[in-house]
Amino acid sequence: MARRKIGIWLIGAKGGVATTVTVGLVALKKGMCGPVGLVTHLPLFEGLDLPEYGDMVIGGHDIRTTTLYAEAQQLASNNHALDGSLVDRIKGELDKIDKNHRSGTLVNVGSTIEKFASDDLKKKGETPRAAIERIQADLKGFASDHKLDQVIVVNVASTEPPIEDDGLPTKWKDLEKLLDKPKKCPLAASSIYAIAALDLGYPYINFTPSLGSAPAAIQELAIERGTCHIGHDGKTGETLLKSALAPMFAARNLQVMSWVGHNIFGNMDGKVLDDPSNKKTKVRSKDRLLHQILGYSPQTLVSIEYIESLGDWKTAWDHIHFKGFLGTPMVMQFTWQGCDSLLAAPLVIDLVRLTDLASRLGEKGLLTFLASFFKSPLGTTEHDFVRQFQMLEDWVETQKAKAS
Amino acid sequence: MARRKIGIWLIGAKGGVATTVTVGLVALKKGMCGPVGLVTHLPLFEGLDLPEYGDMVIGGHDIRTTTLYAEAQQLASNNHALDGSLVDRIKGELDKIDKNHRSGTLVNVGSTIEKFASDDLKKKGETPRAAIERIQADLKGFASDHKLDQVIVVNVASTEPPIEDDGLPTKWKDLEKLLDKPKKCPLAASSIYAIAALDLGYPYINFTPSLGSAPAAIQELAIERGTCHIGHDGKTGETLLKSALAPMFAARNLQVMSWVGHNIFGNMDGKVLDDPSNKKTKVRSKDRLLHQILGYSPQTLVSIEYIESLGDWKTAWDHIHFKGFLGTPMVMQFTWQGCDSLLAAPLVIDLVRLTDLASRLGEKGLLTFLASFFKSPLGTTEHDFVRQFQMLEDWVETQKAKAS
Amino acid sequence: MARRKIGIWLIGAKGGVATTVTVGLVALKKGMCGPVGLVTHLPLFEGLDLPEYGDMVIGGHDIRTTTLYAEAQQLASNNHALDGSLVDRIKGELDKIDKNHRSGTLVNVGSTIEKFASDDLKKKGETPRAAIERIQADLKGFASDHKLDQVIVVNVASTEPPIEDDGLPTKWKDLEKLLDKPKKCPLAASSIYAIAALDLGYPYINFTPSLGSAPAAIQELAIERGTCHIGHDGKTGETLLKSALAPMFAARNLQVMSWVGHNIFGNMDGKVLDDPSNKKTKVRSKDRLLHQILGYSPQTLVSIEYIESLGDWKTAWDHIHFKGFLGTPMVMQFTWQGCDSLLAAPLVIDLVRLTDLASRLGEKGLLTFLASFFKSPLGTTEHDFVRQFQMLEDWVETQKAKAS
Amino acid sequence: MARRKIGIWLIGAKGGVATTVTVGLVALKKGMCGPVGLVTHLPLFEGLDLPEYGDMVIGGHDIRTTTLYAEAQQLASNNHALDGSLVDRIKGELDKIDKNHRSGTLVNVGSTIEKFASDDLKKKGETPRAAIERIQADLKGFASDHKLDQVIVVNVASTEPPIEDDGLPTKWKDLEKLLDKPKKCPLAASSIYAIAALDLGYPYINFTPSLGSAPAAIQELAIERGTCHIGHDGKTGETLLKSALAPMFAARNLQVMSWVGHNIFGNMDGKVLDDPSNKKTKVRSKDRLLHQILGYSPQTLVSIEYIESLGDWKTAWDHIHFKGFLGTPMVMQFTWQGCDSLLAAPLVIDLVRLTDLASRLGEKGLLTFLASFFKSPLGTTEHDFVRQFQMLEDWVETQKAKAS
Ligand SMILES: NC(=O)c1ccc[n+]([C@@H]2O[C@H](COP(=O)([O-])OP(=O)(O)OC[C@H]3O[C@@H](n4cnc5c(N)ncnc54)[C@H](O)[C@@H]3O)[C@@H](O)[C@H]2O)c1
Ligand SMILES: NC(=O)c1ccc[n+]([C@@H]2O[C@H](COP(=O)([O-])OP(=O)(O)OC[C@H]3O[C@@H](n4cnc5c(N)ncnc54)[C@H](O)[C@@H]3O)[C@@H](O)[C@H]2O)c1
Ligand SMILES: NC(=O)c1ccc[n+]([C@@H]2O[C@H](COP(=O)([O-])OP(=O)(O)OC[C@H]3O[C@@H](n4cnc5c(N)ncnc54)[C@H](O)[C@@H]3O)[C@@H](O)[C@H]2O)c1
Ligand SMILES: NC(=O)c1ccc[n+]([C@@H]2O[C@H](COP(=O)([O-])OP(=O)(O)OC[C@H]3O[C@@H](n4cnc5c(N)ncnc54)[C@H](O)[C@@H]3O)[C@@H](O)[C@H]2O)c1
Ligand code: NA
Ligand code: NA
Repeated sequence: MARRKIGIWLIGAKGGVATTVTVGLVALKKGMCGPVGLVTHLPLFEGLDLPEYGDMVIGGHDIRTTTLYAEAQQLASNNHALDGSLVDRIKGELDKIDKNHRSGTLVNVGSTIEKFASDDLKKKGETPRAAIERIQADLKGFASDHKLDQVIVVNVASTEPPIEDDGLPTKWKDLEKLLDKPKKCPLAASSIYAIAALDLGYPYINFTPSLGSAPAAIQELAIERGTCHIGHDGKTGETLLKSALAPMFAARNLQVMSWVGHNIFGNMDGKVLDDPSNKKTKVRSKDRLLHQILGYSPQTLVSIEYIESLGDWKTAWDHIHFKGFLGTPMVMQFTWQGCDSLLAAPLVIDLVRLTDLASRLGEKGLLTFLASFFKSPLGTTEHDFVRQFQMLEDWVETQKAKAS
Repeated sequence: MARRKIGIWLIGAKGGVATTVTVGLVALKKGMCGPVGLVTHLPLFEGLDLPEYGDMVIGGHDIRTTTLYAEAQQLASNNHALDGSLVDRIKGELDKIDKNHRSGTLVNVGSTIEKFASDDLKKKGETPRAAIERIQADLKGFASDHKLDQVIVVNVASTEPPIEDDGLPTKWKDLEKLLDKPKKCPLAASSIYAIAALDLGYPYINFTPSLGSAPAAIQELAIERGTCHIGHDGKTGETLLKSALAPMFAARNLQVMSWVGHNIFGNMDGKVLDDPSNKKTKVRSKDRLLHQILGYSPQTLVSIEYIESLGDWKTAWDHIHFKGFLGTPMVMQFTWQGCDSLLAAPLVIDLVRLTDLASRLGEKGLLTFLASFFKSPLGTTEHDFVRQFQMLEDWVETQKAKAS
Repeated sequence: MARRKIGIWLIGAKGGVATTVTVGLVALKKGMCGPVGLVTHLPLFEGLDLPEYGDMVIGGHDIRTTTLYAEAQQLASNNHALDGSLVDRIKGELDKIDKNHRSGTLVNVGSTIEKFASDDLKKKGETPRAAIERIQADLKGFASDHKLDQVIVVNVASTEPPIEDDGLPTKWKDLEKLLDKPKKCPLAASSIYAIAALDLGYPYINFTPSLGSAPAAIQELAIERGTCHIGHDGKTGETLLKSALAPMFAARNLQVMSWVGHNIFGNMDGKVLDDPSNKKTKVRSKDRLLHQILGYSPQTLVSIEYIESLGDWKTAWDHIHFKGFLGTPMVMQFTWQGCDSLLAAPLVIDLVRLTDLASRLGEKGLLTFLASFFKSPLGTTEHDFVRQFQMLEDWVETQKAKAS
Repeated sequence: MARRKIGIWLIGAKGGVATTVTVGLVALKKGMCGPVGLVTHLPLFEGLDLPEYGDMVIGGHDIRTTTLYAEAQQLASNNHALDGSLVDRIKGELDKIDKNHRSGTLVNVGSTIEKFASDDLKKKGETPRAAIERIQADLKGFASDHKLDQVIVVNVASTEPPIEDDGLPTKWKDLEKLLDKPKKCPLAASSIYAIAALDLGYPYINFTPSLGSAPAAIQELAIERGTCHIGHDGKTGETLLKSALAPMFAARNLQVMSWVGHNIFGNMDGKVLDDPSNKKTKVRSKDRLLHQILGYSPQTLVSIEYIESLGDWKTAWDHIHFKGFLGTPMVMQFTWQGCDSLLAAPLVIDLVRLTDLASRLGEKGLLTFLASFFKSPLGTTEHDFVRQFQMLEDWVETQKAKAS
């Protein structure tokens, strides 16, 4: 059988996560790095027909005009997040991939994100409908230029301010009508991209806390077009640890009185999240799970602060104050010093591989078995990390059983 | 139906854990404390026919002559582990329970533990057989004095030096013959108590890292006598956290390069563990699980140090050095400030309740579904805390299903 | 010579710090506690004629109607900040001291503080002048009732919102005129108390970040009346550590790139500081010293958050990101778990003792040699803790030399 | 006036600290790095006639056969301690400096250090006297080859096991006689190098905890030859922090009950210190100061453990348990993540510059004003970092005053 070719279309294609995905994929193709950090290389996944790195092509939208090489070198020089000499050795490939990048849309992204956009883009006012059509043209061009069998769209763009989606029509046919009325349509870029992709039958993965494909009407669209999607907000640091630790406190009936988490980091994502309105979207996403795991609501505090010197190194301090037997208060604290983009990038690659497989196996709508990858997984209330991972194991075992 | 009466027989009855179990049980009976820290009060266990606190009586062996009240007051004055005024209010009950305590045995416990024993006891040289008979007389006396339907023996005595058990006979009938030959019988007190209990058909729970009922021959005895047992080493602090965190590193394919854990505390257990030979037993128990969860062996270091000022407050610092995507090293650190006896005591009570129920339901041999309570659970290689807890859930659901 | 009697007049007399000062002083008088935490018990101070505890009497103003016993018991039950049985044993003394308390003033304290006041007090609108006269009557009554030779007024009341003091007259005779014009006089209670005290020739110590005696015109008043004063903001936790650690980074030419400090605690002070406007006063005070010690301004962040479960236990996490030789970034982190009132109270007692002595020795105006006690010491730009302490040593040695 | 040329002779010339000194000096000469981390670039030192980098030449002894370039690249690849591309750019210079290196001596260094030596060296048995003569020939050759006006010998070799120096003669003329009797002479290499240098009138700086020039007889030699020396054990991490923090606890009369420090790292120094006997020398040096600063001896624990993955990144966790007013126990903890060689190297350069100046100004014997650089400064009991630094300030100010 001829090998299939898979396109990965990154929204936010020049950002920290996207750049690292791109560098990482090139390095994987060339055997310049090992599988550390890639979930799909665990023994569990052996025997599954996952796409190979050699069959993947990267493209994407961004709103900034910069080059992958420049962005990668900045990650290298800024606290050694990437290895500068590795980046140098693959400059040629990065330059080629730049050519697959197109201008994104700024629909309702808010002023903080707009500030990063090129002047051209800022001037271009477009209706949601026009934006969708432009995006779809880009996606179709990408598919035909590279003779792709599949295109998977991944949102790794900056976090948008929260959208008031209470009043959104819940039917696709009703939502669809708003697309020509910019003033009445509260959807922001992340949802516009989701619609563009899903409408073409392309899967959509939302790695950010932005709304994306979450609205009921867009979920309906995915089903109608027979494609799949999932989100949201990749789980890579403090929240990942919460989802591993909180179940222990719950199972031991140790009463969490307060859980405080302070996050500091200094990359461009941090600059965007320094805007209180964009930050709100993120904090909501990080703060949701404790109630669901514990069954009650301790006092919580989640802060995210931009500290420039840290660059891509996200440092978190968590202070967990809990009560034990006979009422005695005790304390657990942890600090996490992780390189944000390097934690995120392999998960994006895993998600693409698993989504491609799921799509070939006929999965439609939300891929809830991918819950362990997300801070706020759509379609499930399970937040315990090990139980989420078991959802993935179960799915994998089922597919293997079917296949054999 | 007449209510059943359950005896809890604590080996190490005046120790920190035992004293806290005793204070806690009195407080529970009198409604002076809530269920925080007690696993069997989680919603999961509702509807199970677990024994009630009012039906439990405490007795036990120790080698020191002191009173429960004195020990409890020391826990109170030493860094507020217990509430001194609570202890004062239940002095009468504690004094009564002192009367249920008998002199333990020093068979092969090593010189560090011997130092704590009363002079009388030190002089008394007894063969394993004689010790077993004496212990059994104590247990039977306890049962008849209090008209008990069940006696559950729990080892919360000091950690013994490691026993070379390689050459031990694996059949009960062969081991049994060694009991009259002190020089040929390497078994230490924890196993002597286990034999005494199991031989009478009483369940035995080993909350310590000492050998206890682990030898194959003793496991056979339990089956033969139709009773059950489990161990070993209660999981209350750093190791509990390892068993919650390591599965996350494994599932994310983040390569743990080294995991260092330093534990400091200042109670009597700490003094015993300050003897390198006793410490060895403990460290082995704490260090086992990483390999089993991760599937490979990072460099590990576990230290336990006696720092007097900390009293019962066990403080641990763990430094986890791991490698992410593209080889970048990252760090997680945590500190744990827990009151050791208060973390252990409710688990002892939970184990008694669940073991009593299991015993009534006809379980024989190792109660592996209790794995989540132990650092080195007998009968299973599962060390992932959530998966261990699911073993308990599954058992509970099965019993509920049978019952209905 | 007859022994002198010293009155300590606490503004905020029922607060956490004041209650602890009161409990501590009673305990010291009765020999129920040792000198730990009291600076004036260091060998350095031997031979100085400092007032003795038996010669001190406590009184004060507050705006809440509660009792010292109730407040002390709350500190005891809330995370064991005080020892409950000690508090019980001195209830009689505490009840007597309650009788020395009078109603304070709410002039310009802002709505958050006002909320704590009794209804009576809230209704009472008074001009600054009227408030001063009432306060002075209280102080004079205290002095005559107890036949005091000296009264030292210490502000340990809630932190006020920042005052715009730019336009304040710098001469006392001009400021004095504003006291009858509430609308034109921006001074808040802390300054009103300062004026009342200094005008009577009583020393005034400002242990809070509120403005107090800092305005030039009030400093002039102190000189004119021949008395002394000092402030502000007692240095007890994170800032104390900054003043000990930052000089090391400076002296080693290690370039601090960012210094982040997060403070969490749950006492009443925390509740007041949860109001962003009151918090501003505090954060300013905590954030000032780094520039002065380092000679440049790294990025800094200081947060103070109210986490109820922590009670009086102030927990701080500091993350210091610094650059070493050849540009390599390194990290120091610390956590501080201190009981706020217990750290503050002995310093208040020390300040009273030293101020009484200084006053007898004829010191007038700012007592800058007390800089080591304060986050924002008036009259000096020295912030290095050891050098500040040397100012105290020098003063002590000078007095000793004069005396001999 | 013609410019003076200064030779820096490093004992342990291929080690981590020496390699970093060498790379750093080349980078400074070429303007490839700034003055961060160099104490002598603080404003205090402006106007002093310190030697310039362009006038310095490096040579040294080592017992291993490797190249500076290889060692530097390993520091680069191992956790980014050095910047690999910087190292590449100066390879030429490093290769040249390799030629100034000579074979060291193994006299009494113990088996752990011996293991690293080349086979040739191991076979060469030499008396202390012969070793001194050989070393002096090397030093004289270095001076004449490079036309040096001064040679400063710095010991940055591996830490030796402790020497029993109790019975050592205290007079140089008596010690001198032992040099021909290897069996009677307990001196190890560090002291042999010291004698060789001082006897030639060259200053000797001992940056390690080895004995070096500490014996009274060797101190006498230094005076006799009119030269100067200092040591020992560079203060770069946990001990530096202790010397900055402990004075705060002392000055506040907060009673330190226990101070626990765990150090983990994975460079070659760590491998040597993994030998308990070499470690003893180090731990002694780290543990001395608390008693001297506090005036009493809290329980202390200092551990140093070899954790390979950490490379040159020394990570320390310190737990300080202290008692406050009214007896309440509180806790401070810190973690330090520093790159060991990068913290040490600039201090070595500073010490060379200051020692050269001192020597020109006629200082003889111990340079106690350099105490702030050392964990166990010879000639003083002052351990408070700020006060030690003031000794340096005072010396500098005195020299400036003399000069003007
Ligand atoms: N560990 C992680 O890094 C992590 C984890 C979870 C979620 N996330 C989320 O992933 C996203 C990306 O993170 P990052 O660190 O790469 O951020 P980044 O700021 O480095 O990159 C975001 C990129 O998106 C581009 N962009 C913004 N708006 C766009 C639009 N409307 N259309 C097209 N491009 C647009 C920006 O120009 C930028 O290049 C963020 O939303 C972040 O919150 C990251
Ligand atoms: N969180 C925890 O406290 C925890 C967790 C896991 C395991 N454990 C284990 O539980 C045990 C008890 O811990 P602890 O803190 O109560 O210790 P402890 O030292 O306070 O108490 C041990 C008691 O056992 C008694 N004892 C010793 N040898 C005996 C013997 N042969 N027969 C009868 N009594 C004997 C001692 O006299 C003492 O009273 C230890 O082995 C400890 O390692 C404790
Ligand atoms: N470690 C420390 O506790 C510490 C250190 C430095 C500064 N401080 C400052 O000391 C002050 C007291 O701290 P606390 O923890 O005792 O706070 P607290 O809230 O427990 O007590 C403050 C007291 O002041 C009273 N009060 C408020 N406004 C008043 C007014 N106008 N007149 C009279 N009384 C008034 C309140 O009713 C309350 O009883 C705060 O300003 C705090 O920021 C405390
Ligand atoms: N921050 C720091 O790195 C620091 C701080 C204080 C003290 N020190 C001390 O400085 C010394 C060097 O540290 P390092 O990290 O460079 O260690 P290292 O192990 O990297 O280097 C030591 C070098 O000394 C050489 N050596 C050993 N014995 C010798 C001998 N007899 N003659 C000549 N050379 C010999 C070894 O071959 C090696 O190259 C150690 O004693 C260490 O304890 C280092
Ligand atoms: Na990121
Ligand atoms: Na306070």
